[in-house]
Amino acid sequence: MAAMPTPATPRTPTAPTRERIVQSSAELFRRQGYVGTGVKQIVAEASAPFGSLYHFFPGGKEQLGAETIRWSGALYGQLIGAFYEPGADPVAATGAFFAGAAQTLLETDYADACPIATIALEVSSSSEPLREACAEVFDSWIDGAAHALAEAGVPATRTRELAISLLAGLEGSFVLARALRSTEPVLTAGRRAQEAIAAAIDPGAIRGAPSRLR
Amino acid sequence: MAAMPTPATPRTPTAPTRERIVQSSAELFRRQGYVGTGVKQIVAEASAPFGSLYHFFPGGKEQLGAETIRWSGALYGQLIGAFYEPGADPVAATGAFFAGAAQTLLETDYADACPIATIALEVSSSSEPLREACAEVFDSWIDGAAHALAEAGVPATRTRELAISLLAGLEGSFVLARALRSTEPVLTAGRRAQEAIAAAIDPGAIRGAPSRLR
Repeated sequence: MAAMPTPATPRTPTAPTRERIVQSSAELFRRQGYVGTGVKQIVAEASAPFGSLYHFFPGGKEQLGAETIRWSGALYGQLIGAFYEPGADPVAATGAFFAGAAQTLLETDYADACPIATIALEVSSSSEPLREACAEVFDSWIDGAAHALAEAGVPATRTRELAISLLAGLEGSFVLARALRSTEPVLTAGRRAQEAIAAAIDPGAIRGAPSRLR
Repeated sequence: MAAMPTPATPRTPTAPTRERIVQSSAELFRRQGYVGTGVKQIVAEASAPFGSLYHFFPGGKEQLGAETIRWSGALYGQLIGAFYEPGADPVAATGAFFAGAAQTLLETDYADACPIATIALEVSSSSEPLREACAEVFDSWIDGAAHALAEAGVPATRTRELAISLLAGLEGSFVLARALRSTEPVLTAGRRAQEAIAAAIDPGAIRGAPSRLR
């Protein structure tokens, strides 16, 4: 399995200024959070004139933050569809998804994990517009994962809870993995998600049970 | 099940100045992160003179941050022991643990979740002393949870992976829950952890299978 594509780093130097500002913001927010990222750093990274930020985002950093969250969220949401193609084995797809995330952590020195989790924790109690943007993204990921699992044969009554626990396992294992500088939590959470999906598809398949019980 | 105790808020106005500074830091870091918390706000919350922070923490905010992470981590680590008492049913204990976390989120308007996750995501790529403090805490929680699960009868070969996935599920569900302002992710992650622990204790107990197969 190749590394998971890292869709929040497609910085294109020739892109229009507004787009470059969003791309740079996404990259900086993911690595160092929203609070610790200054507008000066954003425009410098985007090779944009300082005034252009307030020209394109009259609401300033908070408006830019909300747009960046939605932009990153949509980009990462596409990953779910890329892994869970209709007809794909959802257990294998889940293993590949988490293995790709672990590989990306290794390749980026544990910097690139979720594009919005840091912001979500920083702002949930302090900025309602940013919290709402994060909530929209998480809702869309839950719906997308649930839909993908349903397409792949998981019973409809189980898809939402499995999607939520898959995403919770991914997000939480990123927190542990970045601090511990180890992919073990991500790979462990991936195996747990695979087991839960396998059990939902075929509740009679017992790991380690005598074959007559399978 | 009563609400989970919230051990990082035992601010004691009569405590020595140094202790009050750490307690106030813990409270502020948990709600708004490390980066967004200024030293002026910390000393104001602690009712401490400004100079006392650098008197007690010559290394400034980073030294205070590392000590606060370890202090909060030790306090929360005690919770694991409180829920998973020797002889307790680990499946029931896990349900109570997550239910308590959900209740605390509700009671604190989704502000009080993990005391160090926000810092861990903010600083893992920018401050090695703070990342190391977070890693020490997560390691101690993993070891503590694994030990508690072993005491409660979970096979030793499974305790580490179950402890990691339990903590990953908790941390990730906090990210989702705070943004979504819903306890659903926490309760869902709790049920998934319960199922995984139950299956590790008794691989033959199939949910929903005909009783003759149990």
